[in-house]
Amino acid sequence: MVAVFPTARLRTSPFHEATIAEGMTSATIYNRMIMPTTYGDPEAEYWRLIEGVSQWDVGVERQVQLKGPDAGRLAQILTLRDLSNCKPGQGKYAPLCNHRATVINDPILLKHADDLYWFSIADSDIWLWANAVIAERGLNVEVSEPDVSPMALQGPKAEAVVASVMGDWVRDLKYFWFRDAEVEGIPVTVQRSGWSKQGGFEIYLRDGRHGTRLWNIFKEAGRPHGIGPGAPTSAERTESGLLSVGGDTDADTNPFEVRLEKYVNLDVPDDTLGIAALRQIAREGPRRHQLGLILEGDVPAPLGFTHEDILLRGAKAGVMTNCVWSLRMKANIGYALISLEAQAGDAVVIMRPSGMTAGTLVELPFL
Amino acid sequence: MVAVFPTARLRTSPFHEATIAEGMTSATIYNRMIMPTTYGDPEAEYWRLIEGVSQWDVGVERQVQLKGPDAGRLAQILTLRDLSNCKPGQGKYAPLCNHRATVINDPILLKHADDLYWFSIADSDIWLWANAVIAERGLNVEVSEPDVSPMALQGPKAEAVVASVMGDWVRDLKYFWFRDAEVEGIPVTVQRSGWSKQGGFEIYLRDGRHGTRLWNIFKEAGRPHGIGPGAPTSAERTESGLLSVGGDTDADTNPFEVRLEKYVNLDVPDDTLGIAALRQIAREGPRRHQLGLILEGDVPAPLGFTHEDILLRGAKAGVMTNCVWSLRMKANIGYALISLEAQAGDAVVIMRPSGMTAGTLVELPFL
Repeated sequence: MVAVFPTARLRTSPFHEATIAEGMTSATIYNRMIMPTTYGDPEAEYWRLIEGVSQWDVGVERQVQLKGPDAGRLAQILTLRDLSNCKPGQGKYAPLCNHRATVINDPILLKHADDLYWFSIADSDIWLWANAVIAERGLNVEVSEPDVSPMALQGPKAEAVVASVMGDWVRDLKYFWFRDAEVEGIPVTVQRSGWSKQGGFEIYLRDGRHGTRLWNIFKEAGRPHGIGPGAPTSAERTESGLLSVGGDTDADTNPFEVRLEKYVNLDVPDDTLGIAALRQIAREGPRRHQLGLILEGDVPAPLGFTHEDILLRGAKAGVMTNCVWSLRMKANIGYALISLEAQAGDAVVIMRPSGMTAGTLVELPFL
Repeated sequence: MVAVFPTARLRTSPFHEATIAEGMTSATIYNRMIMPTTYGDPEAEYWRLIEGVSQWDVGVERQVQLKGPDAGRLAQILTLRDLSNCKPGQGKYAPLCNHRATVINDPILLKHADDLYWFSIADSDIWLWANAVIAERGLNVEVSEPDVSPMALQGPKAEAVVASVMGDWVRDLKYFWFRDAEVEGIPVTVQRSGWSKQGGFEIYLRDGRHGTRLWNIFKEAGRPHGIGPGAPTSAERTESGLLSVGGDTDADTNPFEVRLEKYVNLDVPDDTLGIAALRQIAREGPRRHQLGLILEGDVPAPLGFTHEDILLRGAKAGVMTNCVWSLRMKANIGYALISLEAQAGDAVVIMRPSGMTAGTLVELPFL
């Protein structure tokens, strides 16, 4: 554990005061901002996500806004999805690659209008990167970071809570679709989304002055459903097979290696970033893939800051990129980024700081 | 204070084990890596830097390496310094701007050879950004992050310690100049540099397997000089007028606003990033500048995560971007990023979370 002291180089979200009031006990730094990771009882928070409804400050998911005549063209240049049929109000999970096909982020794209898009980003500086691209290409579009900060409601009871605040129309939102709305005068965008597989919504606050008030409105509405604070949950996301770019990937990871092939359309225009390199990789085939790992042992032994080597038949075949105790599987589980030689069912050995540990490769997701 | 738990999305430096052994008690996240900020006795660490020698893990200063036929051309494209007379073995403080003249980083440039440069960077993703530029421009240069991690020796006795390990030749190194060398077989690059004004060196470890050993070699050599662990020190850097990009700057800060004009050469080639916007700003004149602030009160009251508004004659004129207790000045001091209307000598009011606080603007540096 590392204690971080305040500096203006890092930022807080509009929900920071609310999360302090809720008793946040640890956090991480994400897009140079504070993101709560637990409120002191990780096990209760886990079950609340699986069985009830959990309220998350995910304001660190910054919006990279594209606005102007070339916004649609730029959106397509940056993503490997085919956006030609994307409609206003529609969102898409849209991994981004750099020119040499390394996965650098996996945002949710929100198309507001033909000339207005948001990328709701993971942890890397897409604002800086996209601004370099538009300037080099002379595109007529402004790339900015608007005052927009998501809060998530996740879990099987999230829909009931969000419907009680916003109205029953939210029940008809398809996955990743969204709509602008107001809550007691506070402007928000409501999307069916969230970094779990337990269902739920993200409420994008569009005026940072009202973070505490918005938090408390949903907290009150959730009380009959047993709502409580939580955060993106390492165990649940691992069980569910969700990707953490930068954690599960390295500086050379292409999308085919980490189960993103269905989000890569090789027929996107030739000026799409990374597409030439991706077509070549698709022809030659990737050399690694991502599998699940179930480790022996019945004591929680999470990964630290470092990928751990995996041996297959005595030789290094890849790395374990995350590891966490699963309360439902009652085992340490993780991801392997590993040579194609290694297949689900294979027995492997992980070189852990505590010693060699046996494990078995499995297909993802676990649950 | 925020507690951060391990994840492979964040990294440690090769000196991490050594800093744990030294008793590191808090850290920050910088370039998605752990950087120690104190070892439990900030006051002793401060005086050790001012009067003795302090040993720092600054492995978070990642190297962005440019290698290949167009390395020199790319280095000039990225920086506002004139590099035409830069020699192998020479380093330069080299702020980077994006296309619209916002300061995005302020690295030290190291010219190793005509086809090999490093930028030793502050906290933003220059690797991602520079790779976008070279791909868009079709430059023949590879931009990578080599296995290089700086450790700093800072303070008036640093030279004696470094000379005792490396030899007396280090005494002849001019500021920011460097030389490759070995320490007991460990490859290093030794540069007169460091993020303080107390003098010293950075030892760039060029093989991450030897972090603990390198740390301990310098620790042993420093023992007769009273060496101890430390870190970049908010109070000292503020007293000395050093800039923290991202902390003291915002998304619109140009170099003329933060005392970097002497590192901007308006005659660099037209394809230098940001130069067109900088020439326009130079013609029109900047609208803000950076001054020091001395606050009333005799209780330490550091800034949190948020810039604080500054009032001049009752109206908002700028923001206080950092604030820290100075042990030598016995006052809270900070920086103002403020309208040109405000000048050194002016009395201002800072809107602090604890209430309105009187302050006086002064020229930087303080000491």
